[in-house]
Amino acid sequence: MTPKVFYISDGTAITAEVFGHAVLSQFPVEFEALTIPFIDSVAKAEKVKQQINDSFITTSLRPVVFHSIVNSDIRDIIFSSEGLDYDFLNTFVSPLEQQLGIKAAPVINRTHGKSTANEAYDNRIDAINFTLDNDDGQTMKHMDKADIILLGVSRCGKTPSSLYLSMQFGIKAANYPFVEDDMDNLKLPEALKRNKSKLFGLTIDPNRLHEIRQGRMENSRYSSLRQCRIEVKEVEMLYKKERIPFVNTTYHSVEEISARILDITGLKRHMF
Amino acid sequence: MTPKVFYISDGTAITAEVFGHAVLSQFPVEFEALTIPFIDSVAKAEKVKQQINDSFITTSLRPVVFHSIVNSDIRDIIFSSEGLDYDFLNTFVSPLEQQLGIKAAPVINRTHGKSTANEAYDNRIDAINFTLDNDDGQTMKHMDKADIILLGVSRCGKTPSSLYLSMQFGIKAANYPFVEDDMDNLKLPEALKRNKSKLFGLTIDPNRLHEIRQGRMENSRYSSLRQCRIEVKEVEMLYKKERIPFVNTTYHSVEEISARILDITGLKRHMF
Repeated sequence: MTPKVFYISDGTAITAEVFGHAVLSQFPVEFEALTIPFIDSVAKAEKVKQQINDSFITTSLRPVVFHSIVNSDIRDIIFSSEGLDYDFLNTFVSPLEQQLGIKAAPVINRTHGKSTANEAYDNRIDAINFTLDNDDGQTMKHMDKADIILLGVSRCGKTPSSLYLSMQFGIKAANYPFVEDDMDNLKLPEALKRNKSKLFGLTIDPNRLHEIRQGRMENSRYSSLRQCRIEVKEVEMLYKKERIPFVNTTYHSVEEISARILDITGLKRHMF
Repeated sequence: MTPKVFYISDGTAITAEVFGHAVLSQFPVEFEALTIPFIDSVAKAEKVKQQINDSFITTSLRPVVFHSIVNSDIRDIIFSSEGLDYDFLNTFVSPLEQQLGIKAAPVINRTHGKSTANEAYDNRIDAINFTLDNDDGQTMKHMDKADIILLGVSRCGKTPSSLYLSMQFGIKAANYPFVEDDMDNLKLPEALKRNKSKLFGLTIDPNRLHEIRQGRMENSRYSSLRQCRIEVKEVEMLYKKERIPFVNTTYHSVEEISARILDITGLKRHMF
């Protein structure tokens, strides 16, 4: 039987979920996950406790409960359930208090809240807007203001990677596509040349590219394996000639691609 | 002196960073954070250990070290540094092994890796593309395929919220703007009417809207406080008349807005 896991928080539960998933992905079994955010009252906590207990009765397995709740009255109710409780925050907060010699001053939902970090938040929204306005080479006007400019053929992962860079890390990421007509004489446009230090290439396995393009435009010249091979080859040659660093997106998620780009370029993360 | 914190991982370090930030935000002090991803060899770990030890020498404060490293040889090197070590993963993995009676089978970088969860990953990329193709009411053709349709006036937070919903939760989020010309006789277009159960409204404090619009188009009719007030009032009246649930984005981050939308609508998160 699939073990159940509850992610519970007085805030968005995004942190509990991301972290709990990291812990559970170390185990070679599947878990059935239920995320319950905004548990900010005793009444709501009692209902959740009931859910946890019901799950124990139905499945005869104690569910795993990962939670991060600041208020101790609410937390105690979750603790009193039949679940296997793991208190994410306090497991680390107490030893840190001792080692740092600083008392914690918990505030609900500080992680993804807005009020404490308005400037960083506004920067992040600006970065998202910048990325949308400068997606897919729509305009070259603002390339000078970009933190990074991703290059690559159509459908190699430029847009999701740019968006992740802006949303998660507050990086102003523009991107520029090389299209079919460029292939005969591939070179960098002037606006990119003068921003050479910001250029970062993406490449992809031609077979995977073919698969993705078939999903968009079946049996077209654009999606043919032959065309995919030509474009990838040309673009990789350009990266090498111009000494533009590049990563292959085929086997990496947007998270990995983005983290690698920051690692290679030395760009700073502006998360919070 | 500002205490230093290192987030170290053999993968992207995104989980270590997000979770570490959640823990440290419980303390009423600022930390100077340094994130070091992809520490996947003994040689790299030795360099990081040196960095941690140097930081201790320079600042006379033991830096806080949050890490999630699967390989035990690499982990031991970080453990042997002068930092205050907190091992995110293993703190929970060992008790879970006992309580579940299942041995962990660690695999590096499972959290944000791609290979183990290709289908979920592809869905997420599809959702991002859907959101981009259906941003700002560019087309009404695909509204029937959306999981949710966000409504609101220009610059109230529709686009960042839609993108977060798709990127983080794999939700196909479209959005539709109400513009100045709609205000005299505000009503729902046909494509939205027939998808009424998917509609979700955003609203915003008119003063904040005025501020944001001034940043885009200073001293225009569009950005005037008067116009902002009219639009917000009209849109909120429509939400109430049509019984469309809505949230005020003024004091919430995209994470909070998105989590609230899922909580209110009951839409499932498709994270992994």
